[in-house]
Amino acid sequence: MGACFLEMLRVPVGKVMARLLIATSRIMRPDDANIVGNVHGGTILKMIEEAGCIIGTRHCNTQTGDRCVAALARVERTDFLHPMFIGEVAHVSAEITYTSKHSVEVQVNVLSENILTGSKKVTNKATLWYVPLSIKNVDKIIEVPPIEYSKPDQEELGKKRYESQKFERMETKERNGEVITAVSLPERHTKEPYTVGFSQSSLIHLIGPSDCTLLGFVHGGVTMKLMDEVAGIVAARHCKTNIVTASVDAINFHRKIKKGCVITVSGRMTFTSNKSMEIEVFVDADPLAEAEKGKYRAVTAFFTYISLDKDNKPLPVPPLKLEGEEEQKRFEEGKVRYLQNKAKRLADKEQKQ
Amino acid sequence: MGACFLEMLRVPVGKVMARLLIATSRIMRPDDANIVGNVHGGTILKMIEEAGCIIGTRHCNTQTGDRCVAALARVERTDFLHPMFIGEVAHVSAEITYTSKHSVEVQVNVLSENILTGSKKVTNKATLWYVPLSIKNVDKIIEVPPIEYSKPDQEELGKKRYESQKFERMETKERNGEVITAVSLPERHTKEPYTVGFSQSSLIHLIGPSDCTLLGFVHGGVTMKLMDEVAGIVAARHCKTNIVTASVDAINFHRKIKKGCVITVSGRMTFTSNKSMEIEVFVDADPLAEAEKGKYRAVTAFFTYISLDKDNKPLPVPPLKLEGEEEQKRFEEGKVRYLQNKAKRLADKEQKQ
Amino acid sequence: MGACFLEMLRVPVGKVMARLLIATSRIMRPDDANIVGNVHGGTILKMIEEAGCIIGTRHCNTQTGDRCVAALARVERTDFLHPMFIGEVAHVSAEITYTSKHSVEVQVNVLSENILTGSKKVTNKATLWYVPLSIKNVDKIIEVPPIEYSKPDQEELGKKRYESQKFERMETKERNGEVITAVSLPERHTKEPYTVGFSQSSLIHLIGPSDCTLLGFVHGGVTMKLMDEVAGIVAARHCKTNIVTASVDAINFHRKIKKGCVITVSGRMTFTSNKSMEIEVFVDADPLAEAEKGKYRAVTAFFTYISLDKDNKPLPVPPLKLEGEEEQKRFEEGKVRYLQNKAKRLADKEQKQ
Repeated sequence: MGACFLEMLRVPVGKVMARLLIATSRIMRPDDANIVGNVHGGTILKMIEEAGCIIGTRHCNTQTGDRCVAALARVERTDFLHPMFIGEVAHVSAEITYTSKHSVEVQVNVLSENILTGSKKVTNKATLWYVPLSIKNVDKIIEVPPIEYSKPDQEELGKKRYESQKFERMETKERNGEVITAVSLPERHTKEPYTVGFSQSSLIHLIGPSDCTLLGFVHGGVTMKLMDEVAGIVAARHCKTNIVTASVDAINFHRKIKKGCVITVSGRMTFTSNKSMEIEVFVDADPLAEAEKGKYRAVTAFFTYISLDKDNKPLPVPPLKLEGEEEQKRFEEGKVRYLQNKAKRLADKEQKQ
Repeated sequence: MGACFLEMLRVPVGKVMARLLIATSRIMRPDDANIVGNVHGGTILKMIEEAGCIIGTRHCNTQTGDRCVAALARVERTDFLHPMFIGEVAHVSAEITYTSKHSVEVQVNVLSENILTGSKKVTNKATLWYVPLSIKNVDKIIEVPPIEYSKPDQEELGKKRYESQKFERMETKERNGEVITAVSLPERHTKEPYTVGFSQSSLIHLIGPSDCTLLGFVHGGVTMKLMDEVAGIVAARHCKTNIVTASVDAINFHRKIKKGCVITVSGRMTFTSNKSMEIEVFVDADPLAEAEKGKYRAVTAFFTYISLDKDNKPLPVPPLKLEGEEEQKRFEEGKVRYLQNKAKRLADKEQKQ
Repeated sequence: MGACFLEMLRVPVGKVMARLLIATSRIMRPDDANIVGNVHGGTILKMIEEAGCIIGTRHCNTQTGDRCVAALARVERTDFLHPMFIGEVAHVSAEITYTSKHSVEVQVNVLSENILTGSKKVTNKATLWYVPLSIKNVDKIIEVPPIEYSKPDQEELGKKRYESQKFERMETKERNGEVITAVSLPERHTKEPYTVGFSQSSLIHLIGPSDCTLLGFVHGGVTMKLMDEVAGIVAARHCKTNIVTASVDAINFHRKIKKGCVITVSGRMTFTSNKSMEIEVFVDADPLAEAEKGKYRAVTAFFTYISLDKDNKPLPVPPLKLEGEEEQKRFEEGKVRYLQNKAKRLADKEQKQ
């Protein structure tokens, strides 16, 4: 009778492993999706991050000493392999796969299940990095208890991933250290269709209590959901069809955003290929009640969208009309990213075969 | 009017009248309020409108023929008499007070109750006008079944209110008919504090299924909540204190906004008195999937905010720094509205004494 | 890496069982709780029902033929064994434990985990009955595929539970068949403290798309959450302290509630013991757009609340002041239920020892 599900888990997996796993499921509702019924990428990113935050926080509190909350530091590039629909059940499972002295790597898988037909599809595989912040002193990063690896090369490979993300984080930190140039919002109605200015969009959001962790800082997943929302509007304005998130670039969270801040999330299209659009998204935080701190850029990322017809098949994307050197430069950089990802996908495919 | 509605509900009212009344209660949650615990004016406006929509829709379906949904056409000027707090219970009661051939007048009262101390306060009295749209054909306004008045002068007075709002609606329709001038969003970071450009703000929102009535058009209350959100951010950016909605000007809803539209809600400060700020808010709708329809201005309104100290007492407001003739002109117009409302409030007070 | 979590499950449990299990986890947020931080019973009931609906729908679609959605028919009496708090993780696991020809029994366990301290508590054990409704014809109940029992007496015991709930359902159906007497809303402000009329409360809610299953009928969990909200307001008004749900009586869902309906949820106190309050809750559905169908009583239930001090210890409850024979009669009936439950709890305790 109802022998607890978590208990069952423990039997085969071992006491240590059980603590390193979590699973969650939720029915997709109309509010999670666009009008055609495609679940927003942002909804999925938010679920992924919640699972990661739970398992990371749980693990970092398995030792004595300061209590802490795991704060999202980085999400590796994430692909959306299949669209998910209203009424389907999203299964999210998370597992700790590596720990360094001050960070935790969490691997998250998302499966969509059509409970009417029984069909299941892996929709996402994501890797997130968390850093445990002390509850007593949020500026203090505490030490992470080490995990046991079932095979020695797991630790080796994890360390490589750790070094490589650390390097990339440093790099973007420097880049972001530059003076913050505001994303100018053009008077859209004066703009020609298919230009950058025509589809550029921006929203503001006041960070409320339910957006935050116990520390009073916004959940990374909440930020990602808003970023996807803006990117989606930019994409829809550009091609005026049903659009869905295809992938999200690696995202680094350098600075925390506190409850009561107003965040401005802005998006502009940077690149179009035949069947995809790349949108750059900026999150700027404005601590209204602590004006002396000033506005700062909290996060930036690239989202890739595709346009779908009625049968969920990719449609051609209208090419972006470029105006000025800046836009030309950003387009070329986008093209490089596009070609790199394409090459990487092909390489991965070959490796599997 | 509006002697607590709960009184009316019972026996004396009779079967017919009972149908014309509705009451609801809800505990105010953290997400309904700002960080200091003051419930957002927008939360209250949304509850008011939901009650109005329910009672209006119910009444207009009490006859045979086409089924319909009551769509919000206008909200009269509404004052926020007292702040409401998290944990308090908001009681909303709505009553149909007049019907014309094609419209329904609903009076709504809001009471806040502190269930721990038992103290109660009337926080709002609002008047809304609804128009019943046929479910089969949303462009068709159906006829409203007449209500019975308990006293003959009730009908008389209702007719006067009807004529006066009709006239005002016509007037704003003409005004809004002009070319839509975009609210330009300046590069805020280059702006000096206390200028209009410094606090100006804008958000976008994709109209989702839960935002809409059965007809697939956005609830007036959802729009008002977003308008209040933007106005509140403008006010907070200007004076960097705890701010609360003091009143909302009459709002006319000339054009429907469909599910799947992106709306841009923009706000700019127009006027400051010693202890209040007036913010003009624009709602522009962009039907992404029906681009041929073009973007249109759906609603505009003036919100008045006050700034509160820790004991919820009004604080002085930093005066608005005006730049250019346009801003000067809008400030003067705001001053006229401010003085008119002040005179009206005084007259009302005297009448009561 | 991340070999799917669901796969792991399958290894020990076997292919059949895996389909009959589901687990879900969620961090409790401020909006899930009252101002003191206690998670609302309604939040938990909603999570329980979602897990039940997923597993029931999944199971009933494992055969060929009509696709269907599992609709909640009944929830057995549920105790809230421990309070849950903001920041804790709720783990909900559901398992199919019996199937009759047309119904599915689901057992759900809820565990609260404090991820900072690692402490875990079983907070609820619930039993739900679902009936599969055809998607093509919602008035048709389809046949349920049988499950395999690991022990023969599991089927036997399940059958007994099935027969007993069937009998009770019949009984309440007849009782509910009587003329619906509206729950009159008294002039609360004229009422003395501690009377029934003083704490009586009511809310209305317009059923939106995200409240509903794929069939367009409201999720049982959504209804239960609203019922708990009203019961909580009644309890708080009566004793003006921090109150929490202690248990919910068996609830039968006799009639479906469609999207677009307005539901009125009313609650009145029926009984007080030294340390508990019983509140009767009614759900009346009003299909606004299909007025010819008329208003009907959809659900009724009894909620028991207790009052807690700052250390979460039970406080004495002020006795209910009864007015009139009706209230006296309901009080006596409440007392019988109270004593029966007390006796049952004692018996269960003894059995375990």
